Amino acid sequence: MLQNDTFLRALRCEPTPYTPVWLMRQAGRYLPEYNATRARAGSFMALAGNPELACEVTLQPLARYALDAAILFSDILTIPDAMGLGLSFAEGEGPRFAKRVADESAIAALAVPDMAKLRYVFDAVAAIKRALAGRVPLIGFSGSPFTLGCYMIEGGGSADDFASVRRMAYSRPDLLSRLVAINAQAVTEYLGEQVAAGADALMIFDTWGGLLPAEHYRRFSLEPMREVIAALRRTSSVPVIVFTKGGGAWLPEIARCGADGVGVDWTVDLARARVAVGDHVALQGNLDPVALTADEASVAREAERIVRSAGAGTGHVFNLGHGILPRTPPGNVAVLVDTVHRVSAQLRAR
Amino acid sequence: MLQNDTFLRALRCEPTPYTPVWLMRQAGRYLPEYNATRARAGSFMALAGNPELACEVTLQPLARYALDAAILFSDILTIPDAMGLGLSFAEGEGPRFAKRVADESAIAALAVPDMAKLRYVFDAVAAIKRALAGRVPLIGFSGSPFTLGCYMIEGGGSADDFASVRRMAYSRPDLLSRLVAINAQAVTEYLGEQVAAGADALMIFDTWGGLLPAEHYRRFSLEPMREVIAALRRTSSVPVIVFTKGGGAWLPEIARCGADGVGVDWTVDLARARVAVGDHVALQGNLDPVALTADEASVAREAERIVRSAGAGTGHVFNLGHGILPRTPPGNVAVLVDTVHRVSAQLRAR
Repeated sequence: MLQNDTFLRALRCEPTPYTPVWLMRQAGRYLPEYNATRARAGSFMALAGNPELACEVTLQPLARYALDAAILFSDILTIPDAMGLGLSFAEGEGPRFAKRVADESAIAALAVPDMAKLRYVFDAVAAIKRALAGRVPLIGFSGSPFTLGCYMIEGGGSADDFASVRRMAYSRPDLLSRLVAINAQAVTEYLGEQVAAGADALMIFDTWGGLLPAEHYRRFSLEPMREVIAALRRTSSVPVIVFTKGGGAWLPEIARCGADGVGVDWTVDLARARVAVGDHVALQGNLDPVALTADEASVAREAERIVRSAGAGTGHVFNLGHGILPRTPPGNVAVLVDTVHRVSAQLRAR
Repeated sequence: MLQNDTFLRALRCEPTPYTPVWLMRQAGRYLPEYNATRARAGSFMALAGNPELACEVTLQPLARYALDAAILFSDILTIPDAMGLGLSFAEGEGPRFAKRVADESAIAALAVPDMAKLRYVFDAVAAIKRALAGRVPLIGFSGSPFTLGCYMIEGGGSADDFASVRRMAYSRPDLLSRLVAINAQAVTEYLGEQVAAGADALMIFDTWGGLLPAEHYRRFSLEPMREVIAALRRTSSVPVIVFTKGGGAWLPEIARCGADGVGVDWTVDLARARVAVGDHVALQGNLDPVALTADEASVAREAERIVRSAGAGTGHVFNLGHGILPRTPPGNVAVLVDTVHRVSAQLRAR
């Protein structure tokens, strides 16, 4: 049905004529048309909460660039918001919750939210899917159970690398386990509904798992993600990508969690990552978002270097190693997409 | 000459009766006596700049705990300060420089500072060495050439993971190369003078190398550290430890830079790190500083886990995976030191 399924085939480690590319936060503040739509919406949450506007901004980067996938415009914190924590974004600041989930009674009271409260997300998925009309696949996503837990316990972002959350892992592992278990169930239902609404692939963003000692990472972040993927597999064969920022040293384990693709941040050497994960898992990444804010010659050079480091084989989805930065010149993204497509096609033609 | 040389022997991978332990920032704000001395000094720089007071705070943790090494009380930014950048610390904030080194002309004008300007540091080393009277070894230290460069380019700490520095690595690698080369020469002279003044071991803190793509890490951080160590080796056999925070995925390369010991942050599994670095390099670390702010039972459990993960063999120096946090209860440090000594002695007795 899809006119361009390069992204899905690369995730399945099947041959593709070139390396597919999409960018984390490709619909974002570096685009003037995004800022215009957001201004019209009034706030980030008004934008993410309106399926029509969410669809509009999702499609904006596809109108400019030959990207090989669209990703739902939303936020990773919609689930805790639906749990009743009251999400908001102050202008120029990170997320804030009206309520924290920091003690035993708050965690005991926590429950998987009614998916009807997240209907606006599934409506956005359906709207985008219709608007795409089969041009490229649509990626749905969620925060990882642990990463959601970080924000829920802290009540928002953290100035000290989520010390309160890491402390709970030592002093009350039972509470943290319960929290991530509820989140895992919520994430499973949430992603399942996104697939039902039309998502062609799923991505789990584990932004903060890399702050943990290896043992705690396994227990509180990787294992819950494995459970989510196993549960999704019971009803769907949609490919799943997991991305733990700062997880470069744990790639062999991450590659065994059941995901089809593993995202890697910009500190990782892709050739070495391939050795670490084996041949049956795709790798996604990993240009430094800062490189995309440099001059065009640097963008082209780094893009080519990364395409070559992934080899001429299969199983690479080009992306950034973290979300695109607001100060990125839109022209650089065109250079990036063109370079990835051109260099990877040449490599395969040899 | 030393009454307790356990730390030095562990660094040389020789047998020791127990695992030696010291803690990054062991003389710091978690100790009431430190805060009293700092209040008397008036400011952090007045404290670090006064050899008598620096000696006083260096010895404070040794009066409380059976630590196996002392570390010079100073700051990693003394070198750029001596270059004329004007270092200051606003209360409750990070370091600030009066001048930045952000463009071509500023970098062209940069030179290795006259070591006479850092005399106060070497005087502190000599004073501490006398006051220790051979009880335990004294560790001298410096920031890594790259980490110093981060602060010099940014003019202080960074809210965006030193994006300006990482951008320079793409767009003007020639400028960044020149900056770290000058820093490497300055660090070499600075550490050499610390050895001349009595330092028994040296540590190079590479706080920000872990923010770089692997290729840039090699070029702008690891290679300059290798040059510093090679130059020091020409005049001294004093052991050197390098510590790249966030370098867990690069341990095999870091272990080949010529250092006797490699510091690892709390995300690293020590048993796996041993496999990565081989048998001829010591490992230093790696309790999560947050664990040391939890309850005493958690501190003891984690300390024991890490001692066991390092194995009953040689070549482990117990430390934190990053600096001790100001909110650490002093009683927890006693539990930590006792547990490390007791459990490691039992392991060796088997």
